[in-house]
Amino acid sequence: MAANTKIASAVQILCVIAYKGSGGTTAEAIARSLDTNPVVVRRMMKDLQRASLVEIRPGKDGGVQLRREPDAITLEDIHEAVEGHASVFALRPGGNPKCPVNGHMKSALPSIFHAVDEAVAMRLRQTTLASLSRPIA
Amino acid sequence: MAANTKIASAVQILCVIAYKGSGGTTAEAIARSLDTNPVVVRRMMKDLQRASLVEIRPGKDGGVQLRREPDAITLEDIHEAVEGHASVFALRPGGNPKCPVNGHMKSALPSIFHAVDEAVAMRLRQTTLASLSRPIA
Repeated sequence: MAANTKIASAVQILCVIAYKGSGGTTAEAIARSLDTNPVVVRRMMKDLQRASLVEIRPGKDGGVQLRREPDAITLEDIHEAVEGHASVFALRPGGNPKCPVNGHMKSALPSIFHAVDEAVAMRLRQTTLASLSRPIA
Repeated sequence: MAANTKIASAVQILCVIAYKGSGGTTAEAIARSLDTNPVVVRRMMKDLQRASLVEIRPGKDGGVQLRREPDAITLEDIHEAVEGHASVFALRPGGNPKCPVNGHMKSALPSIFHAVDEAVAMRLRQTTLASLSRPIA
């Protein structure tokens, strides 16, 4: 499967905001760090705003700032903001409804896949934005 | 991100083989369980063979059988067979080489993403093929 770079982008966006301090920053400045288009940054900032991680001030003197302290934002929060409750693994749809193996897959795999997602969430929860942004000189 | 159904397909293939017992079965019979084309099954069986999970006997009386007991095959083995050492998350390539935040992402995120993959592997290791195939009547 293609590994997902969305969380890395979102973490970098939030680290730039944390690095810039309480005055906040702009989508343009963040885009220079990621070397991408500000449109890409703004799209992702909307997801982060929806999850109450950032506050976007519109207008000429607008910008973006964190809504919580960096030590109150975990990678799990960031992951959920940009991916929702996405699963790592999923059942394959369809299959032969008359086959007992196929039926058993549909009943047995979901709890295993859910436990995998829980393991991922638990690991992400152990890292805060502060631990990533603090060491940046 | 689009959740990955490849492991579900591989688990189902191996469960059909386990269910059929020591005599083994054929790609055609497996394809009937998955309701898919035998070509799809054969392609995945090659990955499973490369990982020493199945033995494919070619020819007219050919077929496929497990190379290990179902209780000696874990979901981690199956995942590795079909995905290699794929990561759930990845760094975003590029970024501004002069930005300290961008530089820090490249040094700090890999160990976190590696720990996530380890958490997934550890969870998958807790489930054997036997625990999935045994309850099938």
